[in-house]
Amino acid sequence: MTSAQAILNGDRLALARLLTQVENDSSVGREALIELFPHTGKAHLIGVTGAPGTGKSSLVNQLALHYRKVENKKIAIVAIDPSSPFTGGAVLGDRVRMRDLAGDANVFIRSMASRGSLGGLAQTTANLVQVFDAAGFDLVIIETVGAGQSEVDVARLAHTTLVVEAPGLGDDIQAIKAGILEIADILVVNKADRPGVENTEKALKSMLDLAHPTERIFQHHGTAMRINSAPTQGKPASAQKTSATPIWIPPIQRTISTEGSGIDKLADCIAKHAAHLRSSGDWVLRERTRLEVELAALIRESLMKRFSENVSPNLYEATLQKVIQRNTSPWEAAQILLKEM
Amino acid sequence: MTSAQAILNGDRLALARLLTQVENDSSVGREALIELFPHTGKAHLIGVTGAPGTGKSSLVNQLALHYRKVENKKIAIVAIDPSSPFTGGAVLGDRVRMRDLAGDANVFIRSMASRGSLGGLAQTTANLVQVFDAAGFDLVIIETVGAGQSEVDVARLAHTTLVVEAPGLGDDIQAIKAGILEIADILVVNKADRPGVENTEKALKSMLDLAHPTERIFQHHGTAMRINSAPTQGKPASAQKTSATPIWIPPIQRTISTEGSGIDKLADCIAKHAAHLRSSGDWVLRERTRLEVELAALIRESLMKRFSENVSPNLYEATLQKVIQRNTSPWEAAQILLKEM
Repeated sequence: MTSAQAILNGDRLALARLLTQVENDSSVGREALIELFPHTGKAHLIGVTGAPGTGKSSLVNQLALHYRKVENKKIAIVAIDPSSPFTGGAVLGDRVRMRDLAGDANVFIRSMASRGSLGGLAQTTANLVQVFDAAGFDLVIIETVGAGQSEVDVARLAHTTLVVEAPGLGDDIQAIKAGILEIADILVVNKADRPGVENTEKALKSMLDLAHPTERIFQHHGTAMRINSAPTQGKPASAQKTSATPIWIPPIQRTISTEGSGIDKLADCIAKHAAHLRSSGDWVLRERTRLEVELAALIRESLMKRFSENVSPNLYEATLQKVIQRNTSPWEAAQILLKEM
Repeated sequence: MTSAQAILNGDRLALARLLTQVENDSSVGREALIELFPHTGKAHLIGVTGAPGTGKSSLVNQLALHYRKVENKKIAIVAIDPSSPFTGGAVLGDRVRMRDLAGDANVFIRSMASRGSLGGLAQTTANLVQVFDAAGFDLVIIETVGAGQSEVDVARLAHTTLVVEAPGLGDDIQAIKAGILEIADILVVNKADRPGVENTEKALKSMLDLAHPTERIFQHHGTAMRINSAPTQGKPASAQKTSATPIWIPPIQRTISTEGSGIDKLADCIAKHAAHLRSSGDWVLRERTRLEVELAALIRESLMKRFSENVSPNLYEATLQKVIQRNTSPWEAAQILLKEM
């Protein structure tokens, strides 16, 4: 039996082993991914992101507990560990996270150090998610830290992206500066028992109003109607609803993850978003984008491998030396080396 | 006269025009970069990074003011704007930043939206920095936001990287979580008039102690001696100093950028780090790494261009469809498409 077959049969040990092989990008891992791929496409992929200090990890733990206890679903968590990009050492281990969920065979938590290049990280994350998807996990939560490119990559990978904020982490403008509002499908104000929660929520609301000036009128539990601007002029909104395309306006949900409050409602928002994606056709669109990005990454990687196998190390070193001495520009050097392929 | 020649002659308008062409990756920009490249390699490249809310931008402004008024140096600032990755809209414009430095011909500030792919952003930043370097700017400050891959890229690009912290931005552990300590050459505790500054500094110090357990003993203004462990056993440290390699331990500098205090000392730290890089040989090493990363990015880009020019759109779409329908894995699809090249 191949490791892929063992995983399809629910073998947890084989799963753990394959995740390591996939993370190390071994040939065994690659082959298993090919074998597992036809079994993917069923899981709901949920990205959770936000600045350090927002309490993302405990929120994810609470969500996992909810899905286990209330909905009896299989949950996987891929925690992209905000550890050093250079040493690769994880600060928060799996053990800390497992305390609440230990011994439950239907929960699998995998931490991954954010070492190496981002392209590599995004690709590895996508591969781990595929393994969990094929292994029959109903929900795969991908948790990342920080503000920046990693969030964008998570948004590309996930069906539903939660952006977590918390009161008192700095000026309100910082939320805009972080530039992550556009990737949010659901906004979570965690640590909602802290002072300043109203201000945080107000700032998020006014940012949403800026982003969705008219749609806000028709908002109802996260779904609104996008009105085709030309024909709706002067007509009452209700008359337009049937012919309009439903669009999603990110709901704002307060939570206190240390107490577990607001988690049921948050799970409800997530379920509504999944239903919206299915009915609007966005689920299919996101799948296409995700697989296209993955294909491009694999093509890029294969091309670079071909390159390094075909260019002589001596020519490479000699050309690099000319660049260092400012005799050849990097652009010209690239052309010289590519001629050799 | 080519635009490159105009820039070498100090034409500010030509510089502004070329920066736009380089940012748009136009062929004119590319040609000018090749022409300018032999004139690069003189500027001191300084990266400034840190979480939102630490006051990076005003710190950079203060540093620029110092270099102008005290040291009479030409300064360029490349501010990677923490705007939306999707809309590309800049929240903080150049005008806000220019207030203190307006009308000074020896200061040039360029904001860049962090739109598009990270690879592209890093490459574009490197190109803008090259233009400033060739144009005779003594210092080029590259300012980025957030915790994550963009910091790592800045560290690769810069000679000296400043990591900015501030009191009261969350738990002390968050600084470790952000995982940016390893890229810091100098640690700045900005907003040092805020409560909690001692805690922030203490947390940074204990992290440094963890990272440099023995070297700390010999620390002196940011430079220490790395003792070869075997022969030094039992010998007094002073006896070893002559034969040891000097290593750099990041100094911690308090600043209050709103008042400009601590800025002189910070500039002093930066100058000491540059001297250390020169004397230890690390300057040459960092140059090599930087140019090698840039060369690899250009090769990758050219290969992808070749690919898209050689593979028929119909085959690409048909193959992608098979992936979406889970009939072909992304890995197999990549191989099918690469055969066409």
